[in-house]
Amino acid sequence: MDPSLVLDKLPKLLDLNTENITENVHQINSNNPDRRLKFVVERLVHHLHEFAREARLSTDEWMAGIEFLTEIGKICDNERQEMVLLSDTLGLSLLVDSIDHPKPAGSTEGTVLGPFHTHNLPEKGNGDEIMLNDPNGMPMLVVCTVKDVNRRPIEGVKIEIWETDSTGNYDVQRSDHTIPDGRCSMKSDHDGVFWFKGVLPVSYPIPHDGPVGKMLKVLGRHPMRPAHIHFILDHPRYDRLVTALYLRGDPYETSDAVFGVKSSLLIDVDHTDQVLSERYGVAIGTKVIKYDFTLVSEQESLELRAKNSRQELEKLGHRVEIVNGLPCRM
Amino acid sequence: MDPSLVLDKLPKLLDLNTENITENVHQINSNNPDRRLKFVVERLVHHLHEFAREARLSTDEWMAGIEFLTEIGKICDNERQEMVLLSDTLGLSLLVDSIDHPKPAGSTEGTVLGPFHTHNLPEKGNGDEIMLNDPNGMPMLVVCTVKDVNRRPIEGVKIEIWETDSTGNYDVQRSDHTIPDGRCSMKSDHDGVFWFKGVLPVSYPIPHDGPVGKMLKVLGRHPMRPAHIHFILDHPRYDRLVTALYLRGDPYETSDAVFGVKSSLLIDVDHTDQVLSERYGVAIGTKVIKYDFTLVSEQESLELRAKNSRQELEKLGHRVEIVNGLPCRM
Repeated sequence: MDPSLVLDKLPKLLDLNTENITENVHQINSNNPDRRLKFVVERLVHHLHEFAREARLSTDEWMAGIEFLTEIGKICDNERQEMVLLSDTLGLSLLVDSIDHPKPAGSTEGTVLGPFHTHNLPEKGNGDEIMLNDPNGMPMLVVCTVKDVNRRPIEGVKIEIWETDSTGNYDVQRSDHTIPDGRCSMKSDHDGVFWFKGVLPVSYPIPHDGPVGKMLKVLGRHPMRPAHIHFILDHPRYDRLVTALYLRGDPYETSDAVFGVKSSLLIDVDHTDQVLSERYGVAIGTKVIKYDFTLVSEQESLELRAKNSRQELEKLGHRVEIVNGLPCRM
Repeated sequence: MDPSLVLDKLPKLLDLNTENITENVHQINSNNPDRRLKFVVERLVHHLHEFAREARLSTDEWMAGIEFLTEIGKICDNERQEMVLLSDTLGLSLLVDSIDHPKPAGSTEGTVLGPFHTHNLPEKGNGDEIMLNDPNGMPMLVVCTVKDVNRRPIEGVKIEIWETDSTGNYDVQRSDHTIPDGRCSMKSDHDGVFWFKGVLPVSYPIPHDGPVGKMLKVLGRHPMRPAHIHFILDHPRYDRLVTALYLRGDPYETSDAVFGVKSSLLIDVDHTDQVLSERYGVAIGTKVIKYDFTLVSEQESLELRAKNSRQELEKLGHRVEIVNGLPCRM
């Protein structure tokens, strides 16, 4: 292509003001071949500018926002992800999960990943203890299955699990932390079963000694999350499920600081009887949680995502093409 | 007030999804007495969520965004403000200046502050050199006045000035940087005059070895800014003016990476004749720039801001009250 044709299309960036700047920024951002990027950046700039225009943002407020985001970035390290916390507490994380992983009826719902997921987890087998260093923890047996929507067991699902100890801290939050604890990776067996021993999780505050904690305080919000156990279920043929199980009856059940609780993910804590205790090798009366996860196929999820995208964007009058379930500029 | 009444008003945060999450986040964020904060946060959450919903943001894209913002925060230090650079390159900074500092006809327009403004500047007097360490710089005389809209000189305006050296770097970007250079603070005299000697600024790339530079590259944009000199004019009775003068004819005059150029801020570089040279003590033929700044009173600016806010928000159907020119939730 003649480069002068491209230059001709570029806007003349001069005398920009509240009325004309957005269209000009869209134009200068469109000078690249990535149609998905173009659409995402256009929507980002549109809403960023509309926010400033509608809020009538002042220079001081803008600077406070710049400093807030900078501080959030600076406090992040390998074990603390404050930017995810910001996204969680503004409801963005839950929203993105709902958009990207729509769940047809009958499948297990997803929820927020949270900032405490880590990589390189210890691999465990059925029946293993996942919490090694929590002498005050209340022992808990967790027995689960993974099935498809037709109730067929799925073997070989990789499951990542992480939970707090009895003080409400994840391993990475403990000052004496050296090796992963209260977390593991395991695989479902031939019957789609996976089971492990851990401790009963408790409700806890998200880290609130940083900028996000300050924000919650100013907004008049508490930083608490109800007790829960995190799960990620991964299998090449199924849509990746990021979810959690919440202990029913927690005082923060309906005011989770990160908006994660769903009725279908609330579980009752039971106690083992003699049969269960013998079967799983735990003391009679041990706390026990049972749950059956249902995965959606990759294909079904992709189709549902594309259908939702088409519907939503048609309503808004955006001319787009859906590629891999994601809208691109035509 | 009976606290149970407040609790009654809180939303029951359960089973949130793409359709109902935004309203619930608005409600939980409204549990504080700051009406301005409530309005700003509501508009922020609205547009953040609409962005995700319209772009159909995927989890991977969301994570890329989280990592991008985190990286931007981490690269910031006392001498590098990459988050401002992001705001600048997305057009937000220019937009916020236009909203917060509306300029009636006849007054000097504002523009982007940029990321190189620093505090604790050396104080200089009329005629001083502001660039001490740039042997290759082209000497430049700058002669300015500050007046009100009725052309009356304003005495005692505090002016902050900063410019690049002849290599296109600000002092803080130079590896041998120890003391402020190419920047100063001075005051207008009885006739509203301030003048100084510097070097002719040159066009330069904004720092593009970090995440914002990567973003520009992916978007197919160049990182260049046309040659300019920054000014902040401050006086208790007048609206603070953040602006810059741009050298007319610069190759990047209409493609400034941060959208700052305005026709009224383009200046011609002239050469001193004998009279000027003798008057200001420079060699004949020295480059010279002249500019008359016109400040708006604090009161006039406040009224214009409030009028614009009322107009804009009425159009959008927002029920707000304007307090100090800024809309608040009623």
